[in-house]
Amino acid sequence: MGKPVTELINDIYLRAALSQPVDRTPVWMMRQAGRYLPEYRAVRAKAGDFMSLCRNADLACEVTLQPLERYPLDAAILFSDILTIPDAMGLGLTFEQGEGPRFARPLRTSSDVKSLLIPDPADKLSYVMNAVAVIRRELKNTVPLIGFSGSPWTLATYMVEGGSSKEYRHVKGMMFSDPDSLHLLLDKLADSVILYLNAQVQSGAQALMVFDTWGGVLTPRDYQLFSLQYMQKIVDGVTRHADGRQVPITLFTKNSGQWLSKMAETGCDCLGVDWTTDLKDARAEVGDKVALQGNMDPSILYGSDERIRQEVKTILDSYGKGNGHVFNLGHGIHQFVDPAKAGVFLEAVREFSPSYHQE
Amino acid sequence: MGKPVTELINDIYLRAALSQPVDRTPVWMMRQAGRYLPEYRAVRAKAGDFMSLCRNADLACEVTLQPLERYPLDAAILFSDILTIPDAMGLGLTFEQGEGPRFARPLRTSSDVKSLLIPDPADKLSYVMNAVAVIRRELKNTVPLIGFSGSPWTLATYMVEGGSSKEYRHVKGMMFSDPDSLHLLLDKLADSVILYLNAQVQSGAQALMVFDTWGGVLTPRDYQLFSLQYMQKIVDGVTRHADGRQVPITLFTKNSGQWLSKMAETGCDCLGVDWTTDLKDARAEVGDKVALQGNMDPSILYGSDERIRQEVKTILDSYGKGNGHVFNLGHGIHQFVDPAKAGVFLEAVREFSPSYHQE
Repeated sequence: MGKPVTELINDIYLRAALSQPVDRTPVWMMRQAGRYLPEYRAVRAKAGDFMSLCRNADLACEVTLQPLERYPLDAAILFSDILTIPDAMGLGLTFEQGEGPRFARPLRTSSDVKSLLIPDPADKLSYVMNAVAVIRRELKNTVPLIGFSGSPWTLATYMVEGGSSKEYRHVKGMMFSDPDSLHLLLDKLADSVILYLNAQVQSGAQALMVFDTWGGVLTPRDYQLFSLQYMQKIVDGVTRHADGRQVPITLFTKNSGQWLSKMAETGCDCLGVDWTTDLKDARAEVGDKVALQGNMDPSILYGSDERIRQEVKTILDSYGKGNGHVFNLGHGIHQFVDPAKAGVFLEAVREFSPSYHQE
Repeated sequence: MGKPVTELINDIYLRAALSQPVDRTPVWMMRQAGRYLPEYRAVRAKAGDFMSLCRNADLACEVTLQPLERYPLDAAILFSDILTIPDAMGLGLTFEQGEGPRFARPLRTSSDVKSLLIPDPADKLSYVMNAVAVIRRELKNTVPLIGFSGSPWTLATYMVEGGSSKEYRHVKGMMFSDPDSLHLLLDKLADSVILYLNAQVQSGAQALMVFDTWGGVLTPRDYQLFSLQYMQKIVDGVTRHADGRQVPITLFTKNSGQWLSKMAETGCDCLGVDWTTDLKDARAEVGDKVALQGNMDPSILYGSDERIRQEVKTILDSYGKGNGHVFNLGHGIHQFVDPAKAGVFLEAVREFSPSYHQE
């Protein structure tokens, strides 16, 4: 492979995600640039709505870097939304106050799906690539930048339902009454995600993550057919090397504890694990095939400092000694968490993790 | 044990839930008396709000029996709500249109929990016992009547949050900052549930089910401490015999695929399993300890008749030959399902299941 073109000052996230040796467990937080931070809320208020913030490369960069100024984090993650691709496909994305995402033009019929075009990332998604480039430049090689996308299945749920859902009536209706249309949609989305993630790497992303928020609402059979199959296509299709080094890719399906070994077989580098699975069991399940990212319940951050420190130890013990663990929350940090509590968590990982990496 | 005092015309649900031999797989549907039925919507409109329907024994009986008039079901389940106990404790339950349950007086402090009284089922919950008695009489020993309660953890989530929740901020806040108060609450709820379920059996319920809708949002460690421990107390504390025969008790935690064997160790008779677990894996996990109830994705009922029949076969195959399977959906039937599709499902279980019970 040779020497990386760019030397990162701190590359332990990249190494751990590739199951390579590190001297402490790297840590970052899903949604680390978010509403729990007062400095984020200030920029968000300035930007107006959420998508305007995503579309402004300088402001997106500013909020991406905010948590890194506050905490000793081992990675930055692009500030954006998982629904940029459907928006670029013309579905008309808006975020209502307290209501979550809404699409003006949800997909309901076979012809809706057939007429869908795969977006060119250099065109309608260029604002994302601009943000990646600006953030990468401003990071000054301190820590790596993670790019990301929603999974095809998760994107499809929003696109067919028209927003968030409790019962997935329309998308599962399509699954069970017109599976060919759903497969066509998922295949177009997989192709779109590959182009989108490759463009992010081209623009400077040094690691990739696919968020499959809703894969866990499927049967094990349907998960493999309608979610994992298309994440497999993405793993096979994305750039795995750039800038002279490997670009690790992490797959994260919420509630995936029962099919981690199937996910590991895709050839991805790392799996995100939520808190409903013990990392010990997850590690036994996947063996040396992949690294594991996770898995503290974000609600622990409502607890006392001592309770938070105790949970960090429990999770480090559960994973055990050795390589291949990226510490994280099992889902995004909640908006009502006191930022000081996040600090207690991140410091505890720094303090306790080195002993898990000694011979 | 001797001969049952009351001979049921169809007792295959009771036998299957006790892992005893049957000649076909019994079937019922969670929320079978519900909004998908036009005849239910008519009675509901007559009754006014949801709790008024629950409080009127004759109307509660009418809606309980409606699905049995339409379909060849093997059990009836009391029409009521899981939140009757917190309501009887004085929290002030209302159901807002499309908003789910709301408590006027949620529990937030240690003193809120300490002042909570265990309700006498003969007093503020007598309307439930009246409904049980009327339904049991009107069933005329055709099929057994299932009584039920919410689990202590699931009731606590609603009582502390004040309604439905996405992140469980307040109840998990209590869990991680003041666990003693949460344990006191759960213990009071377990005692309340025992009295409540025993009164239902006294009034005529022939089987029991505990719905732990939200146990699956916990870590495996917290699940055992804060949910399963209190369901264990219930299993140990409820009447297991009445009317000359056994009263099977079923525990159902949504998203419990990763700790079914722990649940089976409680000594309950049957476990409800949602569709995110293959019954084959679940059966391998629990062995002969308990029967299994489930586990069709309710969304399959949006599919074609052929797709529904195919899924029924897949699930029967997954469980395999032998005793101990109660067919059901993995969660309540959705309100937008065409009642004819439920008929296709129930007929398919009747048609295909006998071959799984031949020697």
